[in-house]
Amino acid sequence: MSTLPPLAARLRGVASSPVRDLLALLERPNVLSFAGGLPAPELFDLDGLREAYARVLAGPGARLALQYAPTEGNLELRTRVAERLTRRGLPTEPGDLLITTGSQQALTLVTTALLDPGAVVAVEEPTYLAALQSFQLAGARLVTVPGDEQGVDPDALADVVARHRPALFYTVPTFANPTGRTLPASRRAAVARIASAGGVRVVEDDPYGELRYRGAPVLPLASTSDDVFYLGSFSKIGAPGLRLGWVRSPADARPALVVAKQAADLHTSTIDQAAAAAYFGVADLDGHVARLQDAYRERRDAMIAALPGTLPPGSRWTDPDGGMFVWVRLPDGFDAASLLPTALAHDVAFVPGAPFYAGEPDRATLRLSFTTNTPDEIREGMRRLGAALGVHAAATT
Amino acid sequence: MSTLPPLAARLRGVASSPVRDLLALLERPNVLSFAGGLPAPELFDLDGLREAYARVLAGPGARLALQYAPTEGNLELRTRVAERLTRRGLPTEPGDLLITTGSQQALTLVTTALLDPGAVVAVEEPTYLAALQSFQLAGARLVTVPGDEQGVDPDALADVVARHRPALFYTVPTFANPTGRTLPASRRAAVARIASAGGVRVVEDDPYGELRYRGAPVLPLASTSDDVFYLGSFSKIGAPGLRLGWVRSPADARPALVVAKQAADLHTSTIDQAAAAAYFGVADLDGHVARLQDAYRERRDAMIAALPGTLPPGSRWTDPDGGMFVWVRLPDGFDAASLLPTALAHDVAFVPGAPFYAGEPDRATLRLSFTTNTPDEIREGMRRLGAALGVHAAATT
Repeated sequence: MSTLPPLAARLRGVASSPVRDLLALLERPNVLSFAGGLPAPELFDLDGLREAYARVLAGPGARLALQYAPTEGNLELRTRVAERLTRRGLPTEPGDLLITTGSQQALTLVTTALLDPGAVVAVEEPTYLAALQSFQLAGARLVTVPGDEQGVDPDALADVVARHRPALFYTVPTFANPTGRTLPASRRAAVARIASAGGVRVVEDDPYGELRYRGAPVLPLASTSDDVFYLGSFSKIGAPGLRLGWVRSPADARPALVVAKQAADLHTSTIDQAAAAAYFGVADLDGHVARLQDAYRERRDAMIAALPGTLPPGSRWTDPDGGMFVWVRLPDGFDAASLLPTALAHDVAFVPGAPFYAGEPDRATLRLSFTTNTPDEIREGMRRLGAALGVHAAATT
Repeated sequence: MSTLPPLAARLRGVASSPVRDLLALLERPNVLSFAGGLPAPELFDLDGLREAYARVLAGPGARLALQYAPTEGNLELRTRVAERLTRRGLPTEPGDLLITTGSQQALTLVTTALLDPGAVVAVEEPTYLAALQSFQLAGARLVTVPGDEQGVDPDALADVVARHRPALFYTVPTFANPTGRTLPASRRAAVARIASAGGVRVVEDDPYGELRYRGAPVLPLASTSDDVFYLGSFSKIGAPGLRLGWVRSPADARPALVVAKQAADLHTSTIDQAAAAAYFGVADLDGHVARLQDAYRERRDAMIAALPGTLPPGSRWTDPDGGMFVWVRLPDGFDAASLLPTALAHDVAFVPGAPFYAGEPDRATLRLSFTTNTPDEIREGMRRLGAALGVHAAATT
């Protein structure tokens, strides 16, 4: 009816995710897509997860697994996650954790708990675009922190803190989305120090940390400071369909996070939590992660090897130690978004880089994911991308 | 650290749900609790749900059921839900529906999509307290609409619309939480007419509509107007642990709801949606709902029969045609909250009525749920409650 009030003002300026819209392209059978940020479904531990659900629904706790449950999450799952984080160098108790409906929800809960409308949020540039959406929905004002190939520059962060007094600094310090870059340990300590001194809450988003293909692990930023909100996920080491994430938070924020979680969905799926807890308990998760690392390493290597023959001269790209993404910067004058239709006509897809920028975008950038295609498919997809870019591949194909 | 900024202002005034805090009491084995709003776990169709999960994880779509999925929800599940709503007199297409992580999330998404901070929300008095929390978290100003034993008074709604210009009117018109009362068809039409004329969006929350124990169904309020947001749930007819709900929304609001859902959790658990779709497809859901109706009817009857011997003279209570709750009003001068410790000392629990009020609470009220105890347990619990209230039961025990 024409007399009805408009939608909330904050939603009118927030577009649907371009990455999500591109997911539809994956349905077209002939497209080789480097666009999504999906894990490889053929690598899911289907047998292990099927067994976990069967075990939960056949066991004495089956009816409890179908009932309402506490907002904080399944205690056994929190215990398993806490043990795993502790082994990775982030000492964690089950009580430090809140289970969330994917780490996307963890981000939105932290946003709800920490930000009043008009609050300032500092972000790396470029960064995860669904995080940008969350902050925009919360009515935050975004400021960007410059960095380099090693991630955010601590001196630049100190400058931003002094000038803008952000309430929160959001970062993906390990195998970042979209750049693939990793912040070195020395910078992590500096970031935590600057944030604590400046009264800034840090949100460390770490969905990819276990997917390392080269080099030694770097301790989570949260291990250097009690003031960090650490977001983790089952999506990349297990499977994203269960929508299981967690937030390890400073104690003072936990009651507010629980209230926000209650309003959001009361609690995360009882049965998915119970199945994940059973899976953590009996599966060889370390062995599974090692298999993921081996498969993804091979895929990353295939992509990195193909890029010199794919991209126009003068292009640059990241060479990530882990994660899912290579970030490409085409030569000046290229516009990745306007190249996408041509790429699709060649049955290959990528994500243009512009939506990952909170400030002025570098339109010559694009993101390539190497996880869902085999090395042969990657080589064929790179060949198509090269053709779309007008580059004639050398004899490497 | 003392220099860190405070939590978001809107969270500082929102308390954790007292109902949720009371859930902890259910863990004490000797307490007969009428406090929760839980379905009876012994009535879950465990075999049917176990079979649904097994079928999904053994079938050709198993890996897809573990992967990221579209935000709008599983198409087969939306089709099944749309068919069921259509059969209940609310013509619905799958495209009208967004699957949510429980109907609590549907409420929060609608709130996010429709309300700017400072917006006015009209509510029945008393009403579902988690809805009050959601509106408070969104920074809304609440105004209350008086009613009687038949639910909200349309004339009073017209008056509130004229005086306060609310953006939204929230109602549980069928077997309401906490009162158990049901709005007659004539009032539904009047409410829809007044809301449309006044430019007010209506949110019809209907988790209990299928749990009718007496009388003929009343058509959903949404069937009388295109402007109504209708919230449904798998929690009461299936099981709440899957956290599955849905919102049937006016077309103009759907893109905003999808954006809000993306920010909230990207999408609802892929595997739980697939299992529910499989369950809808093969289970005898009508037969299961009939069994729930039979069991809950017997429990309601046991509670209603016991109340005259339980409550002090001058008490009043509702006699609901369905749902889960009886609403009690003790004589003037009683304060249900201050009676709760005495009740707990007698190993019986209820929810004091005050938190269900957005305005000045009637402290002599309390809510009793009859779903999770057998008739014998209900009789024993009522005996304990009578003792706690100082009432000496007649020979009926």
